[in-house]
Amino acid sequence: MKVIGGGVTAAKGYTASGIHCGIRKNKDKRDLALIVSSKRAAAASVYTSNLVQGAPLAVTKRNLADGYASALICNSGNANTCNRDGVEIAETMCLLVEAATGIAHEDVIVASTGVIGQTLDLTPIKKGMKKLVAALGDHSAEAAEAIMTTDLLIKQTAVTFTLGEKVCTLGGIAKGSGMINPNMATMLAFLTTDVAISPSVLQQALAETVKDTFNMISVDGDTSTNDMVSVLANGLAENVPITATGQDYETFTEALYTVMECLAKGIARDGEGATKLITCTVAGASSKEDARKVAKTVISSSLVKAAMLGSDANWGRVLCAVGYAGVDLDVNAIDVAFSSKAGTVKVCANGRGIDFSETLAKTVLSTDAVTILVGLNAGSMQATAWGCDLTQDYVVINSDYRT
Amino acid sequence: MKVIGGGVTAAKGYTASGIHCGIRKNKDKRDLALIVSSKRAAAASVYTSNLVQGAPLAVTKRNLADGYASALICNSGNANTCNRDGVEIAETMCLLVEAATGIAHEDVIVASTGVIGQTLDLTPIKKGMKKLVAALGDHSAEAAEAIMTTDLLIKQTAVTFTLGEKVCTLGGIAKGSGMINPNMATMLAFLTTDVAISPSVLQQALAETVKDTFNMISVDGDTSTNDMVSVLANGLAENVPITATGQDYETFTEALYTVMECLAKGIARDGEGATKLITCTVAGASSKEDARKVAKTVISSSLVKAAMLGSDANWGRVLCAVGYAGVDLDVNAIDVAFSSKAGTVKVCANGRGIDFSETLAKTVLSTDAVTILVGLNAGSMQATAWGCDLTQDYVVINSDYRT
Repeated sequence: MKVIGGGVTAAKGYTASGIHCGIRKNKDKRDLALIVSSKRAAAASVYTSNLVQGAPLAVTKRNLADGYASALICNSGNANTCNRDGVEIAETMCLLVEAATGIAHEDVIVASTGVIGQTLDLTPIKKGMKKLVAALGDHSAEAAEAIMTTDLLIKQTAVTFTLGEKVCTLGGIAKGSGMINPNMATMLAFLTTDVAISPSVLQQALAETVKDTFNMISVDGDTSTNDMVSVLANGLAENVPITATGQDYETFTEALYTVMECLAKGIARDGEGATKLITCTVAGASSKEDARKVAKTVISSSLVKAAMLGSDANWGRVLCAVGYAGVDLDVNAIDVAFSSKAGTVKVCANGRGIDFSETLAKTVLSTDAVTILVGLNAGSMQATAWGCDLTQDYVVINSDYRT
Repeated sequence: MKVIGGGVTAAKGYTASGIHCGIRKNKDKRDLALIVSSKRAAAASVYTSNLVQGAPLAVTKRNLADGYASALICNSGNANTCNRDGVEIAETMCLLVEAATGIAHEDVIVASTGVIGQTLDLTPIKKGMKKLVAALGDHSAEAAEAIMTTDLLIKQTAVTFTLGEKVCTLGGIAKGSGMINPNMATMLAFLTTDVAISPSVLQQALAETVKDTFNMISVDGDTSTNDMVSVLANGLAENVPITATGQDYETFTEALYTVMECLAKGIARDGEGATKLITCTVAGASSKEDARKVAKTVISSSLVKAAMLGSDANWGRVLCAVGYAGVDLDVNAIDVAFSSKAGTVKVCANGRGIDFSETLAKTVLSTDAVTILVGLNAGSMQATAWGCDLTQDYVVINSDYRT
């Protein structure tokens, strides 16, 4: 497996574009993205667990019912959720793709992100379609930019790997930033691959991999209404089609994991207002699910996140979060350490504070990527979650988002 | 029922004091509180649901096993949690009360609040005991101040009511501020009453009332390790003792509710960095538990809290939070309105945005106490939760708490 540059256009047969069509007032901000596969592709998707779901999700679910799709359209600036005629608007976006590309509207994945509850004006999208289609090419970065809201960084990556003797590629783009506490899939990520794989096995691989990647990040604990992860697999790598679990499935899942982990970490690192990436690795759990719960709870704690901003080795807050994670554990067996490229400092053993160098702790924590290591000493399972620090800027960004 | 001034010294037979003994460096900040009942009192307590629990809670549980107590000691500045010899230190605090007052150490409730994981130095407490006992009197406010951490406001209240022909009084003090997301009882509140009531019925009344008061507030979603609500009932009002549910029990529970709701709202209003009290009332739920879950989820949402800081009528975030509350509901039946002393503005009907005056919305939200009204249109049950806005100051306060 090799990480290469590029994103959704790295695999064979995919083009992408991202333009400013006018949904957003700022002309420098792209707001409409399109991804097209030259061959109809197996498609899978996972959706937010929020009961309030955006209209685009309803249309995408219907269009993916047969397991195939050829294109994806996504706008930023308006979530097309909890408004009038949302479903009709999302359907119209698919029809606009059909009119401009010839791809059947039932083969289009549609997504929207932005403010909730305002009617999405189709006029700029209608006007922009010609330009959007004309711009199709090796433009993954432009598409990645067009789906961003308050994100500061483009998030994309791709990997190559072999199945049999065939070189395969998988790449993806993602957006995140706020309202990030995935429970299934909170944020948008779009993946493309040239692997040949059946829709049901693709769905299984995606659903499994989401659990340890996008579902393990949190920016603010708010599970969004709109977000989803979709993957297209067009088979142009000409590998022996994957139709069941086995060695090829494992290899493909590893590639999926690599791309999705990279995008998930990118979302956490670029959380609204964040200055650093916080990783929490929980080891020694009696089950994978326990490890996931504890790791996710630690990186979701407002108090832990605020302490990380201040590079304050306030491990009591870590232990406190472990205690309310809803996992049965022995608090007198817990170890805690902080780690970064600057070193590692152990701060708690057997559930109690130990003497440590405050100077070393400050040095370890004063970096842009800090890992909190929690040892439960109850078993052999582990999990990792990613988040970010809580900053004044998060508050500023979100106190007046609509205007 | 009449709300009167005072707190834990309002009922017959109680004295209190609060002094600076030296646990905190700031000499202007009281850090040690004592409450004494002249008669051994029925006692009940509820504790945090966090698996990591402070040593004082373990000692208090043991001392209340027989259902009676006569005194309560509480320090701020150090939580006496996750450190060496925590239980021994908490036991010694009870022994110091015995030595200074003659009250058996098994009849003492002990509590601590402050930083986790550092050993609590008993020296200042030992030195201060004489002064603390000498200061006992009608000093509820001093005790309320001594248990504060980052709280800005003293929280105390009291009510009078009659049982039979006997005038009874119930009062309380509380502290809150950060690490506030009670699940059972997260924060400290101490209540005293002269009502005659059996320990088991007192425990039942306390546990029931906590569900709709302290368990319905959230400042930051972090469920603390140390916090508890304790009530002493010394019987000096000479009412016919309450030994079962019935009319007197109802009256007593109403008094408990009044005092606890007032203290709970006080904690929410005084949340770290808060500029306003946010109330969420959920009506039309099919069960009380559903209503509680939805109300608590809305006031816990970081995005809703940040929007309230900016007086931004971003109701989509309210609907989003309702959607991930974990309650089975029809999202197309939900109504949302904002209300305050400046008026009421309806912003969402049947799960969709409606036209509303942004000017009116801004006026309604630009007050120091805002209510979010959520109608589920699924039944007749309702619940209310209290929280506060999320501000830059919350981040500043918590990014360097230990130093």
